[in-house]
Amino acid sequence: MSLKPADPAFLDALSARLPADTLRTPETRYLEEPRGRYKGQAAAVALPRNVDEVAEIIRAAHAAHIGVIPYGGGTGLVGGQVMPDGPAPILMSTERMRQIRASYPAENVIIAEAGAVLADVQAAATEVGRLFPLSLAAEGTARIGGNLATNAGGVNVLRYGNARDLCLGLEAVLPTGEIWHGLSRLRKDNTGYDLRNLLIGAEGTLGIITAAALKLSPIPASPGTAIFTIRDPAAAIELLSLARDAVGEGVSAFELIHRQGLEFLAETLPDLRQPFETHPEWCVLIELGLGKGQDAEEALADLFGAAMEAGLSDDGVIAQSEAQRLSLWSLREHIPEANRRIGSISSHDISVPISRIPEFIPAGWAAIADLEPSLRINCFGHLGDGNLHYNVFPGAGETRADFEHLRGEVKRIIHDLVFEFGGSVSAEHGIGRLKVSDLDRYGDPTKLAAMRAIKNALDPHGIMNPGAVVPGL
Amino acid sequence: MSLKPADPAFLDALSARLPADTLRTPETRYLEEPRGRYKGQAAAVALPRNVDEVAEIIRAAHAAHIGVIPYGGGTGLVGGQVMPDGPAPILMSTERMRQIRASYPAENVIIAEAGAVLADVQAAATEVGRLFPLSLAAEGTARIGGNLATNAGGVNVLRYGNARDLCLGLEAVLPTGEIWHGLSRLRKDNTGYDLRNLLIGAEGTLGIITAAALKLSPIPASPGTAIFTIRDPAAAIELLSLARDAVGEGVSAFELIHRQGLEFLAETLPDLRQPFETHPEWCVLIELGLGKGQDAEEALADLFGAAMEAGLSDDGVIAQSEAQRLSLWSLREHIPEANRRIGSISSHDISVPISRIPEFIPAGWAAIADLEPSLRINCFGHLGDGNLHYNVFPGAGETRADFEHLRGEVKRIIHDLVFEFGGSVSAEHGIGRLKVSDLDRYGDPTKLAAMRAIKNALDPHGIMNPGAVVPGL
Repeated sequence: MSLKPADPAFLDALSARLPADTLRTPETRYLEEPRGRYKGQAAAVALPRNVDEVAEIIRAAHAAHIGVIPYGGGTGLVGGQVMPDGPAPILMSTERMRQIRASYPAENVIIAEAGAVLADVQAAATEVGRLFPLSLAAEGTARIGGNLATNAGGVNVLRYGNARDLCLGLEAVLPTGEIWHGLSRLRKDNTGYDLRNLLIGAEGTLGIITAAALKLSPIPASPGTAIFTIRDPAAAIELLSLARDAVGEGVSAFELIHRQGLEFLAETLPDLRQPFETHPEWCVLIELGLGKGQDAEEALADLFGAAMEAGLSDDGVIAQSEAQRLSLWSLREHIPEANRRIGSISSHDISVPISRIPEFIPAGWAAIADLEPSLRINCFGHLGDGNLHYNVFPGAGETRADFEHLRGEVKRIIHDLVFEFGGSVSAEHGIGRLKVSDLDRYGDPTKLAAMRAIKNALDPHGIMNPGAVVPGL
Repeated sequence: MSLKPADPAFLDALSARLPADTLRTPETRYLEEPRGRYKGQAAAVALPRNVDEVAEIIRAAHAAHIGVIPYGGGTGLVGGQVMPDGPAPILMSTERMRQIRASYPAENVIIAEAGAVLADVQAAATEVGRLFPLSLAAEGTARIGGNLATNAGGVNVLRYGNARDLCLGLEAVLPTGEIWHGLSRLRKDNTGYDLRNLLIGAEGTLGIITAAALKLSPIPASPGTAIFTIRDPAAAIELLSLARDAVGEGVSAFELIHRQGLEFLAETLPDLRQPFETHPEWCVLIELGLGKGQDAEEALADLFGAAMEAGLSDDGVIAQSEAQRLSLWSLREHIPEANRRIGSISSHDISVPISRIPEFIPAGWAAIADLEPSLRINCFGHLGDGNLHYNVFPGAGETRADFEHLRGEVKRIIHDLVFEFGGSVSAEHGIGRLKVSDLDRYGDPTKLAAMRAIKNALDPHGIMNPGAVVPGL
């Protein structure tokens, strides 16, 4: 399985079989990633216009044993989109395949090409009176093909599921260059192995997604947003339970925010409006989306009353307008930006079984304090999914450079703890290149062996996204 | 990949490594299936008590190239659980592994062993104040491992999804005898390929599921059931849309019933109470499950008013008690029994894109009438999922034996039509042995090649459920 670099002879021959301007010298932006931890390299970037051109390129790469790196919006956080070393690959960007091919509002289905920007898919759904609920910080840049390849999560997973739960069918090119025409709009189809879910989350290592049939939902008639202070994470779980008792599936998002996050926001983005006069130790951001004849604001007021009575919360803000709703969400959505400005030593996208969150959070604090008491932790995220972003920062007045030497140890401490709690070291960001060694360390050996067998079976020359996801290849 | 029969020498050697009474001569019941189309054969039935014994057996079978047929409740309708010919395999029944290992109501999770009967899983969920929503006619016999292996559907898919959507993690033994410890309770876990969804729906050809972590839901505070006459299938789709506009995810089931089904019920089960004095051409059975402070009966009454006004319905019954709810459901649940008593020539478990159902149904009628005008069609099922059971029967006074010669042609006509409509020839029952040739005929060639590659990679000797699911092995 030794790959070859994409040399000029290969590129010239391939170019001759494609329309002009399909292959280009890669601009710098294709070789960078948001956290600046990897610098990529590529002999060329391919900009195919349709699935046939994608297939042509993959067939050639397969025949010549040349690596192909699928490239969507470039927003991935684990280095899945950049190959820092090894034989120079081709980068395959989906940016020219960004059409909404069709929408079927009566079926709650939309068909989008892989290169459609997530926000454009959302807008196309809104245009036909429906909701495409996948929602995450990078939605203005991320492309739906990448969202599917990485099984993206975001703030609405609690109600609507991960990216895989929002996909009915795929069109994709497998590593041998064969096209899979699997753009099914069916809700039920038990005809053979679940190739769709195998490609979703494989991060481009088993083929490249070129289009998807996506599930839409009704737009909730009565949305509502609130932020409540909350006693502690255990109280937050109780509150979620109360909310679900009251409105069932109507709870769309339930995000935990720690004082540290509010302080980072105040420090780095002082113009952002804070909901409380003094930063509470914990708070939760709640989004409801209720049906006709229901009133989300009223439901939130009732919930706040119940939370007060149960001793879970002592202060809260319920948005009274769309502007206030956006302002509350803006707070949550700016936490990653505030984190970037502070500069984390190590960030962790982890999940643990929901009921163990109240133990996990302080256990992590204690373990990190044992290592270095000055470190700060910003723990926030998708409480309802058991998914926390548990990020470690230098103490006030210090910089991440001062703690570069501790990064490995910090990461190890958090990930070991997650493993001990039966959790996952990558809840929603994926493995990419950053976490291949973690997967090797924490992964089930039988599952890893199965992954290698599947990878070798579908991609015998190992051309698709070499070095990503699968340990020990 | 030539398999060997499980001969006495193999069985003796294996027996010596297992507790007494783990291997037995198979009773007849293990070798039959509900429709009587296949008669199985097996050298022995294995009744392991735990995953280690399962692994011991599979390792031995893998080493000796002996086939293993996973066996749950034996209720599958496509012959996945019986191997009619070929080298005598071992049958592996999960019936001794039927514990509920743990439940986590605060997390909405229950962990059940593969041999737990579906109804027992439902009951265990109820005991902790939760709902396990998978519900189907065979629930008193079917076992959860089989439900997952076949990605079972049933009446609540509309709201809660197929079996795969109800599973968070699996424990399984892969074809080499390795145990995968994947019993995750996590809602989000993006660490590598989706082995869970690959095993779900593989019908035991890629390993045997031994336990599963299953998603629970709140029990709806206000359930409600109604049956409305409906103008035609297009009106039924409109009504579903009205219902969802009104109560969102609160629509738990939405079943279409044709006059033919009511007539079969009246003929074969005359004691069953019919809701309408004269059989309407079409009706729909609707189940709502609403939250606290909502009233399902009231919502159904409002819906009926809206349906009348829109000219969709002219008669309806809304259950006023739990007994009436059960009685309405009993009607729907007895349709398969009535069908069995009448005796179908050919039955089809198909799906088409929901918006195409109104065209599909009469197109099927016309095509069958062209072949033989006396034939009757009972078309019923999960309209909200686009999944119909489209079953063809002899004319009144005739028997299925009279039309045996037409079975192949009937099946071909319906399946060709489904294919033309972009549908699936197995919406919820799976491929088993009955539909391998259909999958070969209608399946996407790239997907079929990928299935073969995966099967060969994970099960190099082809021991797991030989002859099922994968065409052209």
